[in-house]
Amino acid sequence: MIITLTTDFGQRDSFVGAMKGVILSNAPEAQIVDLAHGIAAGDVQGGAFALMTAAPYFPAGTIHIVVVDPGVGSARRAVAIRTRQAVFLGPDNGVLSWALKEEASPEVRNVENPDVILPRVSATFHGRDLFAPAAAWLARGRKFADLGPMLGGFQRLDWPTSTPVAEGWKTEVIHVDLYGNAITSFPGEQATGMRCVMLPGGVRIPFQPFYSAVLKGSPLAVLGSSGFVEIAINQGNAAKELSLGPGTSVIIAP
Amino acid sequence: MIITLTTDFGQRDSFVGAMKGVILSNAPEAQIVDLAHGIAAGDVQGGAFALMTAAPYFPAGTIHIVVVDPGVGSARRAVAIRTRQAVFLGPDNGVLSWALKEEASPEVRNVENPDVILPRVSATFHGRDLFAPAAAWLARGRKFADLGPMLGGFQRLDWPTSTPVAEGWKTEVIHVDLYGNAITSFPGEQATGMRCVMLPGGVRIPFQPFYSAVLKGSPLAVLGSSGFVEIAINQGNAAKELSLGPGTSVIIAP
Amino acid sequence: MIITLTTDFGQRDSFVGAMKGVILSNAPEAQIVDLAHGIAAGDVQGGAFALMTAAPYFPAGTIHIVVVDPGVGSARRAVAIRTRQAVFLGPDNGVLSWALKEEASPEVRNVENPDVILPRVSATFHGRDLFAPAAAWLARGRKFADLGPMLGGFQRLDWPTSTPVAEGWKTEVIHVDLYGNAITSFPGEQATGMRCVMLPGGVRIPFQPFYSAVLKGSPLAVLGSSGFVEIAINQGNAAKELSLGPGTSVIIAP
Repeated sequence: MIITLTTDFGQRDSFVGAMKGVILSNAPEAQIVDLAHGIAAGDVQGGAFALMTAAPYFPAGTIHIVVVDPGVGSARRAVAIRTRQAVFLGPDNGVLSWALKEEASPEVRNVENPDVILPRVSATFHGRDLFAPAAAWLARGRKFADLGPMLGGFQRLDWPTSTPVAEGWKTEVIHVDLYGNAITSFPGEQATGMRCVMLPGGVRIPFQPFYSAVLKGSPLAVLGSSGFVEIAINQGNAAKELSLGPGTSVIIAP
Repeated sequence: MIITLTTDFGQRDSFVGAMKGVILSNAPEAQIVDLAHGIAAGDVQGGAFALMTAAPYFPAGTIHIVVVDPGVGSARRAVAIRTRQAVFLGPDNGVLSWALKEEASPEVRNVENPDVILPRVSATFHGRDLFAPAAAWLARGRKFADLGPMLGGFQRLDWPTSTPVAEGWKTEVIHVDLYGNAITSFPGEQATGMRCVMLPGGVRIPFQPFYSAVLKGSPLAVLGSSGFVEIAINQGNAAKELSLGPGTSVIIAP
Repeated sequence: MIITLTTDFGQRDSFVGAMKGVILSNAPEAQIVDLAHGIAAGDVQGGAFALMTAAPYFPAGTIHIVVVDPGVGSARRAVAIRTRQAVFLGPDNGVLSWALKEEASPEVRNVENPDVILPRVSATFHGRDLFAPAAAWLARGRKFADLGPMLGGFQRLDWPTSTPVAEGWKTEVIHVDLYGNAITSFPGEQATGMRCVMLPGGVRIPFQPFYSAVLKGSPLAVLGSSGFVEIAINQGNAAKELSLGPGTSVIIAP
């Protein structure tokens, strides 16, 4: 049974290590896969994007744990969500929601059964004390329903939809990757016939088939690997040089 | 057999990769677990803290390798330490010691048997040439005693004890995590009845049950997940904003 | 079957995670090993050095994927190279070449068989769409020859050779590691009898047996773990403090 880990824990502390220890102590056969541990501290949307873009590539039955959890210890719930494809475990702050955009009403459980979690749950590290043991419990073949009571739903982050405007389609940047590519929420399949992306100041960035189709240092728009239109600079940092970040409005124009 | 790796090797070089290759070449069945590779360069205390806070969560029999080793190649010894719970391998510079705080006299071996290490041991990378093959040797079921001659002890880092002062208990910061939380050596179970942490300048930071119990940007004291009192800022960096670092004295006050 | 991953994808995005998902979906028995994911963005030479220094330590039959690929989507080829020891998969931009320095004419294939890659190949992420599924195909025991047509060769990066000059041997820095150690291309076995490294300004750095043989903050030359002469500062950053980087000429002097 595969258990993936996506966190903002980084590499200089042993938070991730402790989670792995708990999983392997409780489910020795589990196969732990590091998905991403460099989500910016507390960046729920960044975690949601990482999960959304990787989860579909995993085999059916995979258990995904995501811990980007600034509200840990508060009244925010700890949820487990089951679809036909996978199980998702994490804080109910929206971090799981983009991976579940197409799921109208998956089964949601409040993870609270004392048999499923560590005897002492700290107020600051539910990844280790709650999500890791719950994932191990499932990996041992136990029942999803035993995690805790069913919930009517879970928190969903807004997903910016594209709206028609005079010049084309208004959309917005939802993620900046480590290269500085600014990824919009505009689906690649709707971009047929579009010729450029207009930035806030009116600058037009032409579509190109791939990054190195323009000179080093030149900007371009491209259909990104996550299925959305992105704005990039060949071997440069578009977000920094063009002042783009999550929330920046841009227009996809024909 | 689980072998965990904790290093200051980071992700831009293949030091960790070479260690994994040596382990898998010598013990194909070993299960390698990355614990933390972003310990600050040469930060022995940071490595000791990471190991101490993660090792207890691993199954009995786990082999932990820690390589934070500024003295590599010098006369500092390479040690293997066995407890009932685990085996620890690393340079004898104290990096293993906090995980062994409660162990009065575990079995310590000087890792030097030529059968156990690579034929050519470099002067700069004992992680690959010595600790990785020794761990693989143990993972193959060989005898701990064959690693090398027994030693009378190993180097221990100081662990700051708390001392009573007029205002409460004087303790000190032992670690700053990636969020900037400043973790003290004051045990959570002794903090009952305490109401605040006094910083060097006299500022009092009140205890809270969890990070988000105060407004974003506000400071708090909290019982951290490692079992010690820590000073944090909700969604902020306490170490930076309050000038706290390893060695800073603070007072836990009722 | 071991599949190693070396990339410039970092930890804040799920690029690495998506590759792992594709591999495990297509070859559930594959053993994925993270080699290094912090290669600087687009640093082909950095990736080549990481692979060269780790690959020899892996068991025979290992499959190494390297994705440092600024030209992704362009006409640059995607290659698979087989030696007696291993299979290498990556863009044909030289990133695989230093690991293959001693191989006169290994078997090279152009990875293009549609059965071997994902149905839809993006223009920006061949790690996920092409190299990961091709590696999984091989891990399932399929034929190397079926990856695609044979090629006459592959792109090789220059490897700076050492040339005799009046003062000794002229060589150059090929890599700076995360500690700031500047690694030259001068082989350690040729360094017998050499006493110092002359920097561009004429400063002479004496050879030492190990890092901590000099005072903290002092420079030294040492036989590094990769088999080459390197310039270091004990517990300091030689590249930064001595202005050394890839391409800097230095002289190894008797």
